[in-house]
Amino acid sequence: MLIVQKYGGSSVATPEQILSVVQRVARTHSEGNSIVVVVSAMGDTTDNLIDLVRKVTANPDDREMDVLLSTGEQVAISLLAMALKEIDKPVISLTGPQAGIFTDCGHTKAKILKIETQRLKNELKQGKIIIVAGFQGINRTNDITTLGRGGSDTTAVALAAALKAALCEIYTDVDGVYTTDPRIVPEAQKLKEVSYAEMLELASLGAAVLHPRSVELAMKYKIPLIVRSSFNQNPGTIVKEVNLMERSQAVTGVAYDHNVAKIGIFNVLDKPGIAYRLFKSLSDQKVNVDMIIQSAMRNDRNDISFTCNQADVRKAIEVIQAQLSELGADGFISDEKVAKVSIVGAGMVSNPGVAALMFEALCEEGINLEMISTSEIKISCIIRSEDTHKAVTALHKKFDLSAAN
Amino acid sequence: MLIVQKYGGSSVATPEQILSVVQRVARTHSEGNSIVVVVSAMGDTTDNLIDLVRKVTANPDDREMDVLLSTGEQVAISLLAMALKEIDKPVISLTGPQAGIFTDCGHTKAKILKIETQRLKNELKQGKIIIVAGFQGINRTNDITTLGRGGSDTTAVALAAALKAALCEIYTDVDGVYTTDPRIVPEAQKLKEVSYAEMLELASLGAAVLHPRSVELAMKYKIPLIVRSSFNQNPGTIVKEVNLMERSQAVTGVAYDHNVAKIGIFNVLDKPGIAYRLFKSLSDQKVNVDMIIQSAMRNDRNDISFTCNQADVRKAIEVIQAQLSELGADGFISDEKVAKVSIVGAGMVSNPGVAALMFEALCEEGINLEMISTSEIKISCIIRSEDTHKAVTALHKKFDLSAAN
Repeated sequence: MLIVQKYGGSSVATPEQILSVVQRVARTHSEGNSIVVVVSAMGDTTDNLIDLVRKVTANPDDREMDVLLSTGEQVAISLLAMALKEIDKPVISLTGPQAGIFTDCGHTKAKILKIETQRLKNELKQGKIIIVAGFQGINRTNDITTLGRGGSDTTAVALAAALKAALCEIYTDVDGVYTTDPRIVPEAQKLKEVSYAEMLELASLGAAVLHPRSVELAMKYKIPLIVRSSFNQNPGTIVKEVNLMERSQAVTGVAYDHNVAKIGIFNVLDKPGIAYRLFKSLSDQKVNVDMIIQSAMRNDRNDISFTCNQADVRKAIEVIQAQLSELGADGFISDEKVAKVSIVGAGMVSNPGVAALMFEALCEEGINLEMISTSEIKISCIIRSEDTHKAVTALHKKFDLSAAN
Repeated sequence: MLIVQKYGGSSVATPEQILSVVQRVARTHSEGNSIVVVVSAMGDTTDNLIDLVRKVTANPDDREMDVLLSTGEQVAISLLAMALKEIDKPVISLTGPQAGIFTDCGHTKAKILKIETQRLKNELKQGKIIIVAGFQGINRTNDITTLGRGGSDTTAVALAAALKAALCEIYTDVDGVYTTDPRIVPEAQKLKEVSYAEMLELASLGAAVLHPRSVELAMKYKIPLIVRSSFNQNPGTIVKEVNLMERSQAVTGVAYDHNVAKIGIFNVLDKPGIAYRLFKSLSDQKVNVDMIIQSAMRNDRNDISFTCNQADVRKAIEVIQAQLSELGADGFISDEKVAKVSIVGAGMVSNPGVAALMFEALCEEGINLEMISTSEIKISCIIRSEDTHKAVTALHKKFDLSAAN
């Protein structure tokens, strides 16, 4: 069957690790599979290139950054291909452009528009292992683009979709997806399987294993993902369409995110269009707003609170200051000493008591909830940052996630 | 006017040097010129990449080597372009493939077949400085190729020819072409100008400033070359079609080459086809034979001597050993303790006394001539390697090359 394997930067950080990847790819090939391997840049490559940039310019041009950064993956694919040739495997490396990965023109954060699979299929037909540079593509003006955050995972899933691969294995430096961060809760369990929707929430809520973007793509094209370690033979976690009727647990995992800031605006005029204009302006300035709460204080006044990434706080404040008189607001505060803890589970929708159980667990620890947001498969709370550890541990215990799943 | 500038690896070895190149390019642009800049990989980049290769394979695949090594120039072009953008210059970087440089399929030593100038002309028309990655191109199967030795110089001259540039400036770490190596003869003079044919001989005979391949291309398309230093503002040496009638000196320069080995085969049968088959086999094994001497010893026997690069000696010996009985030879010797000293000058052809003067100079120093080879504009002698310094000094003095030219 056709398998897409993706190896992240930490899996190819050294020549020795490349040789270990070679063994794994060769074994998969010897078992009779067709393989497309997607590789990220080796370990520190990208950081080293960015250090060079800092020495020649303070404002690197986006197009030229893509020309520069795309070399990192190109080095990795050629080394991996050479090493496979050395053990007599038929193999060819392809850059993103050579692999037919066409993107839009959004340099440094391009989106894949289509994959022209002619060459890929041709090389596969010849029995070759194809090594593709992740994270990169080409736009319609024949310029090199890079895909931004989660780029290599996205390349892998997109190739799997375009080639109708049986599955897409994401090799990384952890064993799979856990019920929560094992560094915080040592009893955290590796999940055997998780649904796309749950994975998407976990990824968005701070679990760093997969980028939400690649999960979304896998969900759309129903590509089974396997998240596993390149450093051992453990089976990993399968991300796929899960039959909910078989679910015994309401909650699958606990996630947390420290990269959160809370902004509150006091006594905003309660007039139609006020909130719209505020959040339109924030969106125009590319401030990624997450949770929003509006609470009526008096008849004609509201408090509006929202959260965003800490990197966006400065821009958000500029937007608010510019609109302060129009908002009729008394003032505002921003607070970066907060964190978001979330519980995720596809079984939640049919278990109405889950939210209450979450609030109980946090209350028992004396943790104050500053904001709450719910969706069909997750509940998130904003708490004081210093309470994160306590909160995650309590939630993991309350929902009995240490039990084998 | 349209100028092609080429900066070698030593001219862009550090971010600081890149910024100095930026100043030079910007100045040329501000003077109202259109510019195409060709850049090599930064300093040690290529060596570092080859070190990585050694850690994953002993027999790197040629195609994958090209994928790997071409990243070096790609890093350099993007950094240079960014730095030019920083000072508000309109600029775009292009890889070899993007610049339309089409080559044959000879990976690691490809030859340029044609340059499709559409994009280049389009970017120039928009007033942009174009930064092109030297040393690389693309073949008809859409694979990355590299041009091998002298590759970046060749890229620059080929672009100058394809775009009908007014001139091609080759920036390097020396001030220009000298009458001989200034490290050996401190009185060596920088040549103000030199003809293509002389430069070709000097380059072939060991003067490392330009690769013969790029000189040949410049001669063919009559592109004036200027060889100069990127570390100062000195005017450099012009390589162009020189009017011979104006020549006052018979000899233009003295060159030497230590990368020479002499191989002698004794008492070879004097039969038709013997020499042909020997040198055909050497050529088949890619042994680059330079000088050949055949001397009749007896009626039916000859000694055959030839020179080649030291790297080719092992292969040459294998060829000879395989043919020893067919050659009917007594045996052979190889000798790597030799060097080649040469005098070059377009005025030589009309000065019959030049050879005698050369032999006199060497004789006066007690230097034995082991082989002699002449062409219209050069005379080369094989001597003991340890005599090189003495020979070059004596020749430089005999032909009065310290006088301003």
